[in-house]
Amino acid sequence: MNGAESLVKTLVAGGVDTCFANPGTSEMHFVAALDKVPGVRCVLCLFEGVATGAADGYARMADKPAATLLHLGPGLGNGLANLHNARRAHTPIVNIVGDHATYHLQYDSPLTSDVEGIARPMSAWVRTSRDARSVGADAAEAITVANSPKGQIATLILPANTAWSNGGVVSKVAPADAPKPVPEEVVREVAQALASGSAMLLLGNRALRSKPMALAAAIGAKTGCLVRVISRNPRIQRGAGRVALERIANPIEKSAELFRSVQTMILVDEDEPVAFFAHPGKVGKLTAPDSNILTLAMRGDDVVAALESLADLVGARVDEVPLEQFARPDIPTGELTLEKIGQALGALLPEHAIVCDESITSGRTFFPSTRGAPQHDWLQLTGGSIGIGMPMATGAAVACPDRKVINLQADGSGMYTLQALWTQAREQLNVLTVIWANRSYKILHNEFANVGAGKPGERASSMLDLDNPSIDWVSLAKGMGVEGRRVETMEQFAAAMKAGLAVKGPFLIEVTL
Amino acid sequence: MNGAESLVKTLVAGGVDTCFANPGTSEMHFVAALDKVPGVRCVLCLFEGVATGAADGYARMADKPAATLLHLGPGLGNGLANLHNARRAHTPIVNIVGDHATYHLQYDSPLTSDVEGIARPMSAWVRTSRDARSVGADAAEAITVANSPKGQIATLILPANTAWSNGGVVSKVAPADAPKPVPEEVVREVAQALASGSAMLLLGNRALRSKPMALAAAIGAKTGCLVRVISRNPRIQRGAGRVALERIANPIEKSAELFRSVQTMILVDEDEPVAFFAHPGKVGKLTAPDSNILTLAMRGDDVVAALESLADLVGARVDEVPLEQFARPDIPTGELTLEKIGQALGALLPEHAIVCDESITSGRTFFPSTRGAPQHDWLQLTGGSIGIGMPMATGAAVACPDRKVINLQADGSGMYTLQALWTQAREQLNVLTVIWANRSYKILHNEFANVGAGKPGERASSMLDLDNPSIDWVSLAKGMGVEGRRVETMEQFAAAMKAGLAVKGPFLIEVTL
Repeated sequence: MNGAESLVKTLVAGGVDTCFANPGTSEMHFVAALDKVPGVRCVLCLFEGVATGAADGYARMADKPAATLLHLGPGLGNGLANLHNARRAHTPIVNIVGDHATYHLQYDSPLTSDVEGIARPMSAWVRTSRDARSVGADAAEAITVANSPKGQIATLILPANTAWSNGGVVSKVAPADAPKPVPEEVVREVAQALASGSAMLLLGNRALRSKPMALAAAIGAKTGCLVRVISRNPRIQRGAGRVALERIANPIEKSAELFRSVQTMILVDEDEPVAFFAHPGKVGKLTAPDSNILTLAMRGDDVVAALESLADLVGARVDEVPLEQFARPDIPTGELTLEKIGQALGALLPEHAIVCDESITSGRTFFPSTRGAPQHDWLQLTGGSIGIGMPMATGAAVACPDRKVINLQADGSGMYTLQALWTQAREQLNVLTVIWANRSYKILHNEFANVGAGKPGERASSMLDLDNPSIDWVSLAKGMGVEGRRVETMEQFAAAMKAGLAVKGPFLIEVTL
Repeated sequence: MNGAESLVKTLVAGGVDTCFANPGTSEMHFVAALDKVPGVRCVLCLFEGVATGAADGYARMADKPAATLLHLGPGLGNGLANLHNARRAHTPIVNIVGDHATYHLQYDSPLTSDVEGIARPMSAWVRTSRDARSVGADAAEAITVANSPKGQIATLILPANTAWSNGGVVSKVAPADAPKPVPEEVVREVAQALASGSAMLLLGNRALRSKPMALAAAIGAKTGCLVRVISRNPRIQRGAGRVALERIANPIEKSAELFRSVQTMILVDEDEPVAFFAHPGKVGKLTAPDSNILTLAMRGDDVVAALESLADLVGARVDEVPLEQFARPDIPTGELTLEKIGQALGALLPEHAIVCDESITSGRTFFPSTRGAPQHDWLQLTGGSIGIGMPMATGAAVACPDRKVINLQADGSGMYTLQALWTQAREQLNVLTVIWANRSYKILHNEFANVGAGKPGERASSMLDLDNPSIDWVSLAKGMGVEGRRVETMEQFAAAMKAGLAVKGPFLIEVTL
């Protein structure tokens, strides 16, 4: 058995059965092993940022890592931006990055680069396998690292000769650590703080599933503390029959007054609220300087148990929390506006939909208007590196073939990783992409003023606008085998949404704003 | 004057008057400075790999660096693959990468990452400006580093507050070092080696302009040594009226016998010939183990002076070297074949064309059939990281607005950075893109066998083929504002070429293979 086969078998043994791949020469033995070893679905992506973003979307929904297959340093480089987002989403990923044969590196042939150096900024764990015999054990360790309750990115670099040489050993994958119990005294301290004045529970990451959100809501109802989530979370479970929490809208800086009004900020698998960017003359830390910041649960802690203990201590009862009522807005007609589109989304969102939201400025009305829709998951851009939406939708659709994925997509961001549409067509993935064609980096128009740069002149404006030429998304989709439709009225939007939802496979709607 | 303005003024003072930009919030003050300070043409790219590849193409033709403007670590990450190619082309580039305000980094807000760590693998020089006062001097140093005769990538990281704070100082840009003279004893040693038996002059990089190639050809004619170039060079000047050198075709390993037959290998701004990838059981170093490897000129050396000295020593006379005669093949008709397409290219290549060749497997016949065409430059993929062609063509067209750029483009490679077409449309760049639609990673089909992985099975094949769905490049081009045409016969190809050559602006031809 060669190293590549031991790798594929170890992946299968470790429950990693999906690989988003953009292979090259140095990965050919891994590709060959896919034929010999059953159990891994390999999804071809035409750009590495699609592969890494899809692995992120997959793991957010499957709650287990996918592998990526990338080609040396430059291939990994192309994947870094969405690995950055995955790192900020605490998503488990196992990157397999091919490299030259160990004995070939001395020649510094054209594709040689510092693969480990490129991997490190976005990886919690990086290893280059020494020989075929080590590959299985290295892969097993990578899987265990990724599966940590912290959700980590592990990058295994596979020199070509470690893949093709014999001597591969399939390795048993050690179970990841269990989530860490939160010490009782921490829970007690939080309970006391809740009793003593104005407080906020700020939930993130693993705390945004139904059960912990219900617990937090119960604690809020009992103690009078605020309960909030921030608008850059990997996955929120919501919809009718679930507990709805209020979301701090983007830009977060607009909620600075709310944060400053809180005496005790209690973090539940979330970081302290800070400004996304520094702006001249504005503070970065959004809480009051004298506020009390407590951490109930950190990344990797047992969030549910901590909230249960806290609920017990304060006497909060989950079964008394009101659940979101089923309520759909009417579908508005006439001219397209973002507010009306939000209502139409609330009216049409199918049960168990997975919303992959990279709407940036356009999407700020969509979250409130869908709260009473049937149960669904809402996935967002976590790390601020645009170009996640289409890949994330691709990965989510691979993870959940029976659910409809709706990718709410800003046009400027969409252009970074549009190659994802081809993979959606190839795999006939159930993704409905809705592009907000505002034909500008709208957020930069806002930020230009926010950072005190004044009003953009002609040359500056030309760096912020995408209207010359206008991007024709229906043609781009067609070019990659995805059916699309452009809409200019609410009636057309609603009709296109219904058509797209009815299709089993990818569909794209370009909304002219 | 704020730091951003001092930066733009320093760029202008240093002759860096073109910037390929994909800006974000942290770069807004630089964008604002563009309006206040005249002298920099800023070209918007919708993906950072387009910006870095365009900067590479620009500098190859302009013989001076462009700047890029990139957004924090992930933006730089997206640009790494083409920076890798630029590094291998010894292209001067000044990257300007925005970062958070220095005092904001402590908050680890979502877009925070290790920008320096991401920059280092592809940069000869990396610096983060400390304050507004330092920005001008840092930029000046970056320009000097880039302008080194070695051709280097300098990455200047610009924290937002160093851009927006006052106190900027425009800095004088020190001239770069002159190319280093090659010591006389080195030239004498090479001359002696040439006299003593079978030898090859292997030319690369700066040795591939008209004058050094003519000198090398004269030395070859006089001494009987072979003179060769390798098929991954940044820029070769060729065509009727110039000296033509024989090119070692890809894959280089096929020429191993030739290399091994040479007793003395003389490197002229080129590296020792090595296998691109290791293959099981094959050697990496292509010269014979007992061959004598001499370096006449290293990167940054005065190549022309060294060749002149050598020519003098051996008594070679440039004016006796036969020049390539003007000769165009006839345009073939009927079924499309790569050989016939090569002839048509030879028949139609306009004077002063810039050929940006990322044909990969499809293009192996094109170089010989164009040798008698009017004078032109031929630019290639240097670092093996695919996705350079369209960006490189974009940058070359910005550098040389009066010349026709012809991008010979493999389809699989083209998909990595297709966003370049939008910039071509926006700037109305004179680029004719010819896509070889073989609908596969053809080179991987070859490499699968070469690395000893046997014959690909069904699942492996699906990782190498791009035919499901077929990519429709005419629609992709239309989506980005570029007119296109699909051709299926030689007659259609010739007609489309003539149409594309007549257009002043971008045009795309999809050649169905």
